[in-house]
Amino acid sequence: MITLAIDAMGGDKGPAIAVYGVKTALENLPNLKVILFGDKDQLVPIIKKAQLDRSRIEIHHTPDFITHGMKPSVAFRKMKNSSMALAVAAVKEGKADAVVSAGNTGALVAFGLFTFRMLPGVGRPAIASLVPGINKGALMLDLGANSECSTKNLVEYALMGHIYAKVILELENPSIGLLNMGAEDLKGNSRVKEAFTILNQKEMGLNFKGFVEGNDITENAVDVVVTDGFTGNIALKAAEGVIKTMMEVAKSHANSSLLQRILFKIGMIFGAPSLLAVKKRMDPRRYNGAWLLGINGICVKSHGNTDEYGFYRAIKNTLVAVEKNLLDKIRYELELHQADIWIESDNSSS
Amino acid sequence: MITLAIDAMGGDKGPAIAVYGVKTALENLPNLKVILFGDKDQLVPIIKKAQLDRSRIEIHHTPDFITHGMKPSVAFRKMKNSSMALAVAAVKEGKADAVVSAGNTGALVAFGLFTFRMLPGVGRPAIASLVPGINKGALMLDLGANSECSTKNLVEYALMGHIYAKVILELENPSIGLLNMGAEDLKGNSRVKEAFTILNQKEMGLNFKGFVEGNDITENAVDVVVTDGFTGNIALKAAEGVIKTMMEVAKSHANSSLLQRILFKIGMIFGAPSLLAVKKRMDPRRYNGAWLLGINGICVKSHGNTDEYGFYRAIKNTLVAVEKNLLDKIRYELELHQADIWIESDNSSS
Repeated sequence: MITLAIDAMGGDKGPAIAVYGVKTALENLPNLKVILFGDKDQLVPIIKKAQLDRSRIEIHHTPDFITHGMKPSVAFRKMKNSSMALAVAAVKEGKADAVVSAGNTGALVAFGLFTFRMLPGVGRPAIASLVPGINKGALMLDLGANSECSTKNLVEYALMGHIYAKVILELENPSIGLLNMGAEDLKGNSRVKEAFTILNQKEMGLNFKGFVEGNDITENAVDVVVTDGFTGNIALKAAEGVIKTMMEVAKSHANSSLLQRILFKIGMIFGAPSLLAVKKRMDPRRYNGAWLLGINGICVKSHGNTDEYGFYRAIKNTLVAVEKNLLDKIRYELELHQADIWIESDNSSS
Repeated sequence: MITLAIDAMGGDKGPAIAVYGVKTALENLPNLKVILFGDKDQLVPIIKKAQLDRSRIEIHHTPDFITHGMKPSVAFRKMKNSSMALAVAAVKEGKADAVVSAGNTGALVAFGLFTFRMLPGVGRPAIASLVPGINKGALMLDLGANSECSTKNLVEYALMGHIYAKVILELENPSIGLLNMGAEDLKGNSRVKEAFTILNQKEMGLNFKGFVEGNDITENAVDVVVTDGFTGNIALKAAEGVIKTMMEVAKSHANSSLLQRILFKIGMIFGAPSLLAVKKRMDPRRYNGAWLLGINGICVKSHGNTDEYGFYRAIKNTLVAVEKNLLDKIRYELELHQADIWIESDNSSS
């Protein structure tokens, strides 16, 4: 059995999303056990209504929870009894194998970082997620753990992305691209130019393809897309926004007259399989559950505003990471790489 | 009549795109005259084949042209006789009202900047373009003129965006948002946090809505989206990439079997009006033609890999800017604002 610590209070839409996400997860993942962290007065009625399998869940009452607007440093200092803090602590204490939270990203990074500490040789954590694409998914990082990103951070992200893609995507030699405003090597800010020079060295042992552009993220130019947290977060949300915008424009046009509405509905019936294939492939909920990379524990961030299906997917993605012994493999790969490639960024690592 | 200087050699796909784009423009825009800059040995046969209205075009032979991989500083020093350089010069000399080029962005910024010089009170140029959205378009800047962006640059972009939206979108008091990795004011890098504090002051006289996220670009949260050139370029290309990816996934699924192909085709016939509405609304070619802002001349950048329809749209967008006396209005608005709001960023302006 695998036990996950679930911060049930983190999502934007309240604890019901987490509880119903857990319900779906328990139904689909027979080797799952769950500890739910949150306010029992809120949780128990929802759990009863949802008719959760009580033999596989445990409720851990926590008086506090961290809001999305709270400053991470404040949350870390004052919210030691919050659902998030105690869920993270449960993993540290060996009561659970990994933690899932839809809460305040900065606070989760802080608790994850200071509870588990960094892996040897890594300076800063990153948030990594699978993103959909034309033929397959790619791994993208950082998606917002680190808003001020140095050259050294970018190099580390490329190395971590390489290892994660090997383990999670099961690729022998994943290709890596560095996100830039043009594919030519003379464009971009000083950080990406310097990172390019380092990553391009043969001694790095990476399948580095150089710079990639924004459209390459979903057009599958590479298996791993490396960028700073500021740009990565904005680019991914911009891409998600376009999907929503396209659907809204279609719906709004279809509703412009009775004739359009009827035509559109008939069209959707026939076109449905192919359009559903697109919807399914691009659905951000399927890719929900981003790994907090570089720390010595498995810590997964769900979208704050996801629904119960999205939360279920985050649980499933976390389970996969535990089942694949992600953390042991990363430690092993880091040790292997340490001698020959870590020298580059060894001086300032924490 | 309005005369545009066209760099016919700049696009990725050769001069035919520019020539056929000009053909469509001449047919649709009766007050347009064009000077085509490029290699006459290449241009004349295409012009003959395209049967352009020779009374409204002029060919200016240029021996050189700037490639996309050329370093902007090298292009600026060594390519004074290139199609791009001479097209820009023609505007400076009063032979044309504005310039359109699909060439090397960095080189166009360099020639535009050093030929026209900056407008008083503006430190750095920006590339601004209309972007599609759920209900209407928004103006977004910078899209890649400036890869290293200071707090001061962001503040200037907000001011320029305000003025451009007034003139081009004809809005009385356009709303402005600063792109960030979260809507809370405690997120983001130091540049956006400092710019937020400055733009939020009442004395700035702006309708500033604070931080917006990547998805807000197309979800019409604000009329003007302000960001640095690195992030703006990547976010916009990421959004464009998703549109292409969705179409490819639908096509590939539809081609997976004869039944799917037939169903999809029938579906598209009925759903066509609404889906075409989406395609039309989101078509990057319609928004082609980005203004180089902050310089004392009208300089428009077309996508390098656009087709003839896209190039036509860039010409049309340029014509609109000339017809609306964009430059005079900007100078006037800048003077108006200078006294009360320019003080903030006056010290280091060029």
